[in-house]
Amino acid sequence: MKVVIIGGVAAGPKTGAVLARRMPEAEIVLFQREAQISYGTCGLPYFASGDITSFSELINTSYGTPRDTGFFARTKGFSVRTETEVVGIDRKAKQVRVKDLKSGEIFEKSYDKLVIATGANPIKPPFEVAVSDRIRPFTRPNDAINFRRLAEQGQIGKAVIIGGGFIGCEVAEAAGGLWGIETVLIEKEKQLLPYILDPEMSRISEREMERQGVVLHLGLTVQKVNTGADGAPIVHFNGESIEADYVFLCLGVTPEVSLAKDTGLEIGRTGGIKVDSHMRSSDPDIYAGGDCVESFNLVSKKPVYIPMGSLANRHGRVIAEHIAGIDAEFKGVTGAFLVKVFDENVGAVGLSENAAKRAGIAAEAVWGSFPDKPDYYPEVKTFSLKLVYEKSSRRLLGLQAVGLGDVLRRIDVMSALLSEGKHIDDLFDFEHGYAPPYSEALDPLHHLAGIANAKSRGIEFVAPIPNDENVIWLDVREPEEAEGLPWPRTTISIPLNDLRERLHELNKSQQINIVCRRGPRSYQAAVILKRAGFDKVAVIGGGTQASLS
Amino acid sequence: MKVVIIGGVAAGPKTGAVLARRMPEAEIVLFQREAQISYGTCGLPYFASGDITSFSELINTSYGTPRDTGFFARTKGFSVRTETEVVGIDRKAKQVRVKDLKSGEIFEKSYDKLVIATGANPIKPPFEVAVSDRIRPFTRPNDAINFRRLAEQGQIGKAVIIGGGFIGCEVAEAAGGLWGIETVLIEKEKQLLPYILDPEMSRISEREMERQGVVLHLGLTVQKVNTGADGAPIVHFNGESIEADYVFLCLGVTPEVSLAKDTGLEIGRTGGIKVDSHMRSSDPDIYAGGDCVESFNLVSKKPVYIPMGSLANRHGRVIAEHIAGIDAEFKGVTGAFLVKVFDENVGAVGLSENAAKRAGIAAEAVWGSFPDKPDYYPEVKTFSLKLVYEKSSRRLLGLQAVGLGDVLRRIDVMSALLSEGKHIDDLFDFEHGYAPPYSEALDPLHHLAGIANAKSRGIEFVAPIPNDENVIWLDVREPEEAEGLPWPRTTISIPLNDLRERLHELNKSQQINIVCRRGPRSYQAAVILKRAGFDKVAVIGGGTQASLS
Repeated sequence: MKVVIIGGVAAGPKTGAVLARRMPEAEIVLFQREAQISYGTCGLPYFASGDITSFSELINTSYGTPRDTGFFARTKGFSVRTETEVVGIDRKAKQVRVKDLKSGEIFEKSYDKLVIATGANPIKPPFEVAVSDRIRPFTRPNDAINFRRLAEQGQIGKAVIIGGGFIGCEVAEAAGGLWGIETVLIEKEKQLLPYILDPEMSRISEREMERQGVVLHLGLTVQKVNTGADGAPIVHFNGESIEADYVFLCLGVTPEVSLAKDTGLEIGRTGGIKVDSHMRSSDPDIYAGGDCVESFNLVSKKPVYIPMGSLANRHGRVIAEHIAGIDAEFKGVTGAFLVKVFDENVGAVGLSENAAKRAGIAAEAVWGSFPDKPDYYPEVKTFSLKLVYEKSSRRLLGLQAVGLGDVLRRIDVMSALLSEGKHIDDLFDFEHGYAPPYSEALDPLHHLAGIANAKSRGIEFVAPIPNDENVIWLDVREPEEAEGLPWPRTTISIPLNDLRERLHELNKSQQINIVCRRGPRSYQAAVILKRAGFDKVAVIGGGTQASLS
Repeated sequence: MKVVIIGGVAAGPKTGAVLARRMPEAEIVLFQREAQISYGTCGLPYFASGDITSFSELINTSYGTPRDTGFFARTKGFSVRTETEVVGIDRKAKQVRVKDLKSGEIFEKSYDKLVIATGANPIKPPFEVAVSDRIRPFTRPNDAINFRRLAEQGQIGKAVIIGGGFIGCEVAEAAGGLWGIETVLIEKEKQLLPYILDPEMSRISEREMERQGVVLHLGLTVQKVNTGADGAPIVHFNGESIEADYVFLCLGVTPEVSLAKDTGLEIGRTGGIKVDSHMRSSDPDIYAGGDCVESFNLVSKKPVYIPMGSLANRHGRVIAEHIAGIDAEFKGVTGAFLVKVFDENVGAVGLSENAAKRAGIAAEAVWGSFPDKPDYYPEVKTFSLKLVYEKSSRRLLGLQAVGLGDVLRRIDVMSALLSEGKHIDDLFDFEHGYAPPYSEALDPLHHLAGIANAKSRGIEFVAPIPNDENVIWLDVREPEEAEGLPWPRTTISIPLNDLRERLHELNKSQQINIVCRRGPRSYQAAVILKRAGFDKVAVIGGGTQASLS
C-alpha cells in the first residue's frame, strides 16, 4: 500500500502518524511545500505577542524535540519531504507530479491512496493593497515573525487591523495589549466576530476592546491600503484615512483547492473540497482533510466551511483509520469556537440567531447573566449567555457566551448536546459538576431552559441593547446597586422586594421593560406584574451585566 | 390547592418558589425547624476558613437581601415559618402535626400535596465520642460558626479530621491551609475520597495534601474520641492516640427519613425515601426531594444515595412543576462530583473502576495526563484522567480527573455523554471548543478514546502505581527530563527518538513497563516494541505526571 499525503501542518501529519501505527507495512510519504512542518498555526498570535518566546516552541514537541523530518522518520515511522511541492495529480495513472523546490527537479510519485491536506490561503482583499512588509496577512509563520521583529525593534507605534474575526481579535490583543501599540480595528460588519456572535453579544466584547484602548471602526469599508512617501502604510476608508506603521489583513481564509479542482474533484458550494463521512472526495482513492474541505453542520444540516486545527486533527485520524480498513466516520460539526478578547472569554457553538435566520430556521432566543460560582465565594467572575432554539420544535440551535468567567464548559456541554439534536427541556436533565469553588448549585444551562419555558408561558424577553421604542424602564435593583442604566430612558426604580406594594406607581397602558443586574429579579417582577394585569411587560435579558459590563 | 413543604434549605424553598410562580392561587406553606432558611450549606467550609467573611453572605441573595420569611412572602410569594417542626404526618386525614418551637404550641395543618425535604443528618460515629464543643460534625451552620470562633480566638493549634470524603477534604483546606492549623486526617479506607476515586487517582490528591502539610492516616480505624483533663479531645486509633484542640467528625450523612418512615412511606435500600421519576413517594400525594431521597444511577442502573445541593434544587423544580400539572421528570443521576483539594481540582462522574466492580460490571480503564492548553502557551497546567468503560460493550462508565488544570469541562461533558449511554467511539465525535488560551487541538477525551482503542488492539496499559512484579522499567523521556522515577526499579533510559536503533539493549523475555511524562511517547514506544516482536510490554498510564505530581 502506497499512500501520498499533500500538506504538512495538521491533517497531513496526523494522518501519517496514525496510519504508520495502523499499517506499519504501508509506504507513506508526505510532501510539504514549506520548510517548516507540523507547526502550531493557532499559536502564531501568541508568538507575535511575545507570550511564546521562541518560534521553535511552536514546532517542538512538549518535551523539546523538533518535529522535523528526522522526528517523523524515527519516531512516527513515515517519510516527510519538506520544500517539495505537489504540482499536479494524475488520477488515471494514480500518481502525483512533484517539484523539489530546492533543486527544481520534477518527479512522479505513484499512490494507492492520496490524501489532500493543502490547507487554506488568506482571502485576497477586495480592495487595492500596496506590496510592503508592513502590510501583511497573518496566517503563516513568516507573517508572525515579520511583525514581531518590527515590534521588537520599536518600529511599530500604530497598527491597523482590517477584519474583526478571530485572528483580528487575537492580533488586537497581541499588538495593543502586549506590545502597547496604538491599535485601530476596522470591520466591515457593524460588530466584531459576526460569524459567531449576534450584535448584542458582540457588543460586550467590543466594550472590552475599547476599555483596553483599541479604537473600533465598525460597519466601515476599506477602499485602499497604500504607502506614503516614507513607506508607511495608509488605510483609506469611507473618505477618511489612517497612517500606521503596520497593517494586518485579517479578512479570513479560503480553502486551497487548486490541485483538487485541476484534477476534477468535486468542490462544494462553500468552496471547500466535498468529502463524504469517511473524508473521501468524489474520487474514492483520494481523501481530503483539514482547512481545504467543506464540512456538514449538524445543527443547520447545511454545508459549512470551518477552518480549525482541532477539526483538521480529527479528520486526520478518520482518514488514516479508513485507509487502514476501519469504519471511522466524521459525522459533521457543531461549530464550537473560543476566542480570548483581552481579559474576556468569548465562546459560541451552533447557530447564532442571525445564522439561524440565514439558514432559514425560525428561531427564538433568551439571555442570562451568571456568576461562575456562588456569589458568596471569593473571586467570583461573571459572564453572559444567549441561548438560541428553534421556535416550533424547541430544538437547541446554539449558545453564545461572553465574559470574565468560565464559559468553556458551557460551550463544550452545549456542543455535546447539539450533536444529539437535544431540546430545551433536555437541559434540565444535564447534571453539572457542583462545588462552590467551581459552580453554582444550578448550572446556567438549567436556568436558560427555565427562562425559555417562562418565555413560552408568555413572559417576554428582549435583547440587552438599546432600542427606540417608547418604553418605561423599570429598575428593580436595590438603591445601592443603582449604577446608571446604559440608555437614557424614563426610569422608575422599585426594588423587587417592594414591587407588590408599589404597583400603583406603574401605568398599565405603557410598555414596561424590566431590568436588574442579571435577570432573575426582572423575571420575578414580570411574573408579579403579569399577575396584576400588566400585559405590556418585557425582561431585559442578561440585565445590566450584559448591557453595561 | 393547599401545599405543605417540610424543610427549608434547598429542595423545599425551590419547590415553593417555582410553585408560587406556576400556581399563584395555591396556598403554600413551608415549615423549617431551624431559625435560618435557604442557607448555602455547601458554602460552610468557606465560611469556616474565613474565605467568606460573614455568615450572612451564605443567607443573602447576591444583591444583599436576606432570604428570610419576609423575602419569601414578598418576593417569592409563599409563606415560610421557621423554628417550626413538623412532628407527624397523618396520610388518611391529609394533614401534618406541627410544633411551634418557640411557643411550644402544637397545631394541625391540612394539605392536598405534601413535600418532604427533610435533608440529611451526620452519620452517627460507630465509636464512642465524648460530648464537647471541640468534637463536632460539620454539616450545620453552627458547626462552622463554632469552629471559626475558636480558630479566630487562636484556640486551635491542632485539629484531627475523621473521614476523608468531600467534607473532610474541604475542612482540611479550611483548617490546614487557611488557618495554618496543624492538621491530621484519619480515614478508614486506604485512600481519600473512596466514594468517587480509585486508589491510584486518589494518590495524586494525597500527595497534594501531604505537600500542604496535612498528615494522613489512611486505612486506620478510630476506636474512641474522648477528652483529657484539660477538656482537649483525644483521638484513639489502632493503639495510638493523638491529642488535638478540635476534632471534626466527617463521616458522611444519612437521609433524614423518620417522618416518612413513621407514616409508612416506602424507604429504598440505600436508606433514602423511594420516589418515582416525578419525585413522588409511594403515596402519590406526597413528594420528596433533596438529601432525604434515593436516586437512580443512570450508569449502574441501580439505586444510589447522593446528597447534593445541586440535585436538591433540580428536585424542587420537578416537584413544583408536577404538582402544577406539568409532566416534569427527574430521570436519574450520573453522579458528577467536584472537590477542591488545596490547589488541586478533583472531579469524577459515573463509576470508578471499584464502583463498577461493586455494581457487578466488568470494566476496563485507561489513563492519560494532559496539559490544559498547548504546551507552548504560558501558564500551562496539567491534570490526569482515568476513563472507565464496560469491557464487553465499550459503553462509557465513568471519568476521574485530578490536577491543577481545568478538569471541570471534562467532567461536565462526560456527564452529558454518560446520561446518553454513549460508547468509547462516540468520544471521537465530541467537538470541543478550541483556542490556545483554553485547550489543545485535540480534547483529552478524544485522546482517551484513542488509548482505549489502542488497548483493544493489544497495547497493555497499567495504573500509575507501584506494583510488585519483576519488571524492567523503560524510561523513554529525554535525558534532561529525567527526574527520579517513583519506584525503585531496574530502569533503562532510551529516549523515544533513539528507540528503533537501540532495541538490542532490551530483553524480549522480560516484562517491560514503559514510562514517559504523560503517556503518548510510551504508547508510541509500545507500538515500536510490539512490532519488533516484544510481547510483554505495558504502558504506565498517565506517566510520571500521574505518579509523581
